[in-house]
Amino acid sequence: MVVLVRPRNPLNIGAAARAMSNFGARDLRLVNPYKLAFRDARSAMGAGDLLKKAEEFKTVDEAVADCSLVIGTTAVGKRTLQHPPRYLDDEVGKSVQSALRKGRVGLLFGSEKTGLSNEDFSRCHWLCKIPTHHDNISMNLGQAVAVCLYEIARNASPESPAEKLEPATARQTEEITQGLMEALRSSGYVKPGTDAMFEKKTRQLILRFGLEAYDAKLLLGMVRQIGWKLRQSAKG
Amino acid sequence: MVVLVRPRNPLNIGAAARAMSNFGARDLRLVNPYKLAFRDARSAMGAGDLLKKAEEFKTVDEAVADCSLVIGTTAVGKRTLQHPPRYLDDEVGKSVQSALRKGRVGLLFGSEKTGLSNEDFSRCHWLCKIPTHHDNISMNLGQAVAVCLYEIARNASPESPAEKLEPATARQTEEITQGLMEALRSSGYVKPGTDAMFEKKTRQLILRFGLEAYDAKLLLGMVRQIGWKLRQSAKG
Repeated sequence: MVVLVRPRNPLNIGAAARAMSNFGARDLRLVNPYKLAFRDARSAMGAGDLLKKAEEFKTVDEAVADCSLVIGTTAVGKRTLQHPPRYLDDEVGKSVQSALRKGRVGLLFGSEKTGLSNEDFSRCHWLCKIPTHHDNISMNLGQAVAVCLYEIARNASPESPAEKLEPATARQTEEITQGLMEALRSSGYVKPGTDAMFEKKTRQLILRFGLEAYDAKLLLGMVRQIGWKLRQSAKG
Repeated sequence: MVVLVRPRNPLNIGAAARAMSNFGARDLRLVNPYKLAFRDARSAMGAGDLLKKAEEFKTVDEAVADCSLVIGTTAVGKRTLQHPPRYLDDEVGKSVQSALRKGRVGLLFGSEKTGLSNEDFSRCHWLCKIPTHHDNISMNLGQAVAVCLYEIARNASPESPAEKLEPATARQTEEITQGLMEALRSSGYVKPGTDAMFEKKTRQLILRFGLEAYDAKLLLGMVRQIGWKLRQSAKG
């Protein structure tokens, strides 16, 4: 599933949809698109079903809630993030194919001008960068979508390996994040004013756990019980 | 070298040039472009050097005269040609890289509407097709150029930049396990008599996180702070 975050150019929205149909991707989601752009893209000549069925969301959070793997794309190799992006290659393609056998995958592309924000990145399990030449690292949105989907499609293998563990959804991950944040606040780990920064950090940490659905339930239970106890103690 | 044959849309010419700069390709040649399109593309905002230096030719023949390998791109799998196209993949990328070490390579893209003609094909050593989904085999010109150049560029160097992150040690994992167990006991999650079973379960859970050293330190700090708070509350 391709998620365009704050796209501004109807041609790029159309181009993303076209690349999706070229490589057999189905669901297009848009987060907070520039209204006119979305309208124009939808009403453009030859806009296919894919574009007509595209769903609109207010936040990245909602757009990826049912995804078990969320990948953010970025043009820059190094950010102020602890974790460097993976370069698009066979391994990335295989990771995505393997994830697709178990659940939904959200591939996030930022707006044409600014890309994805750090806030958006904090929703991603990991980041991916197309290995571009240093002369020009910034790709056109439609072309970036085409290249990513090509790499993913080329790694589709007819046979699927046996291992089947259901991965945690973004919603489960978010519940754990919120539960842990509550416990961290109660315990004084999070100092006043650093809440937003810690929430991002915590979400990222939990995404990196790569939880399965079973473990997510287990961890959520633990976190909630601890949170409950801390609340009780605070009252008493 | 990218050769656009009879391109009609200035946006596509610009997009091809942009993809070339993204993947380190240098020379753009145009065969019989639609005059206005070429002029518009050249005068467009942000048209780089590559577009300004683009050369114009009357025929494919002249445009590829100095090439030692000429590849035609096509959307269709079967033509009335004797030779079926090769599907774009690593092997194609490697063939091009190998040819580039010895001479010039011309990669031909046809016009948006009709693609390359049989006459054009007859100038090619072989044809190449991007493996698209049967739903929509026809790619946008700029996106097709991007995908081809990506595949060629990715086969340029044998080794890909792999970032190594230091994994957590068993000691770190154990410290987290013990810290979490303490918090779980304090909060009443672990019922008396089930301690040993839960400790195993918790250790297994944390092992499955596959923590890096950095994340292990972060998580240990969180768990210890929560544990400390629960102890304080129990005393108070």
